[in-house]
Amino acid sequence: MPADAGPSRLDGITLLSPLSAEERAAVARQCRWRRFHANEQIIDHQGESRDVALVVDGRVRVLSHSPTGREISFDDIEAGGFLGEMAAIDGLPRSASAVALEEGTLIAFLAPRPFQDLVSGHPDLAMAVMRRLCRVVRIATDRVMELSTLGANNRVHAELLRLAKRGRMEGGTAVIAPIPVHADIASRVSTARETVSRVLNDLARDGLVERRADALVVRDLCRLEALVEDVRAGV
Amino acid sequence: MPADAGPSRLDGITLLSPLSAEERAAVARQCRWRRFHANEQIIDHQGESRDVALVVDGRVRVLSHSPTGREISFDDIEAGGFLGEMAAIDGLPRSASAVALEEGTLIAFLAPRPFQDLVSGHPDLAMAVMRRLCRVVRIATDRVMELSTLGANNRVHAELLRLAKRGRMEGGTAVIAPIPVHADIASRVSTARETVSRVLNDLARDGLVERRADALVVRDLCRLEALVEDVRAGV
Repeated sequence: MPADAGPSRLDGITLLSPLSAEERAAVARQCRWRRFHANEQIIDHQGESRDVALVVDGRVRVLSHSPTGREISFDDIEAGGFLGEMAAIDGLPRSASAVALEEGTLIAFLAPRPFQDLVSGHPDLAMAVMRRLCRVVRIATDRVMELSTLGANNRVHAELLRLAKRGRMEGGTAVIAPIPVHADIASRVSTARETVSRVLNDLARDGLVERRADALVVRDLCRLEALVEDVRAGV
Repeated sequence: MPADAGPSRLDGITLLSPLSAEERAAVARQCRWRRFHANEQIIDHQGESRDVALVVDGRVRVLSHSPTGREISFDDIEAGGFLGEMAAIDGLPRSASAVALEEGTLIAFLAPRPFQDLVSGHPDLAMAVMRRLCRVVRIATDRVMELSTLGANNRVHAELLRLAKRGRMEGGTAVIAPIPVHADIASRVSTARETVSRVLNDLARDGLVERRADALVVRDLCRLEALVEDVRAGV
């Protein structure tokens, strides 16, 4: 364990919160600890490792790449979360890669056997892992539906609506801060960065969104919602 | 419990195989049992039910519909399997619907609370549920990748390759029997039935597939594999 990775460093991992401090310290001793630079690979799609990655500090993006090198991203995991549990559960190859989004991202890697022992010994941890897997299925299922039924423009609208709903509300206006990176939106809805830029420019010209210095503002959330719902309903 | 649904009727449910016969009989008594006609809806996407569905007899398709009514199918569950566990785990609305594929499909519905008790009391059941959720994630993730990176023609090739690999092998030839329904392939790869027919006609003209009275034959599995891999690799 590195000097800055004391036994209490796992106290912020939500999955482990049902454990006692002693149990968490025991898990911490079983982990392999490593800090990563921003953009450094944490899990290699094609690698042999089957460890679970607990995100102690920083932030992690789960992603794959298309044959032409385009990034397809699946989820961003904040400090306190975890990823890579599927290979630890079923022993199959990684379904995606993961990279650090922040400099100094600290990961505690737990091997499949101790992870399975932990989950088997603590039904509440098992339920938490199941709830997280359900969340992953739901996100992927929604995305399959959107890719199957919506065009790229409407997928950008739908992603903007998701970001807006997570943002700060001021009446019917939603403030998304910081300004989302176009390439990030593109990789989340499987389109080109240029498409995202074009769609956002179109929405800005219509007065639906406004670009401030530090935030993207959706000026009429109801209208954006209607735009997405109309297409979803086949209007 | 209906007359034909005795306490031993859950003996074929793989998930419950770690239980004793007595424990399975106790679960059987907690279930609500119902037979379904072919094409009858078992789980309604918009319904309030959060029960797990154990497939005792018959076969079930998990699917959604696009706004224009096109079927998007996710998985077919054989007798002995289960579905609908996500809503029982996280309490959220159904992510998809389910319909019976065979006349007389017999379902045992288990409510969320007894399902959670069962899983919490039996770590091996919990692991089995996790492995099944991982499988669902992996299928959905592959599909997101295919929808994001492959055109409709190549997605039909990829699905044909999956069917061929599950079929009977005769040297480099794979026999897919019965002949897959074009609409089923279309709903699994999110395209139109006409696209599937056109792609299969093209492959037949090239001599890569052959349509027999009772089977679809892939005459050169290596060539089909190369066709799919070349596109995946961006060649």
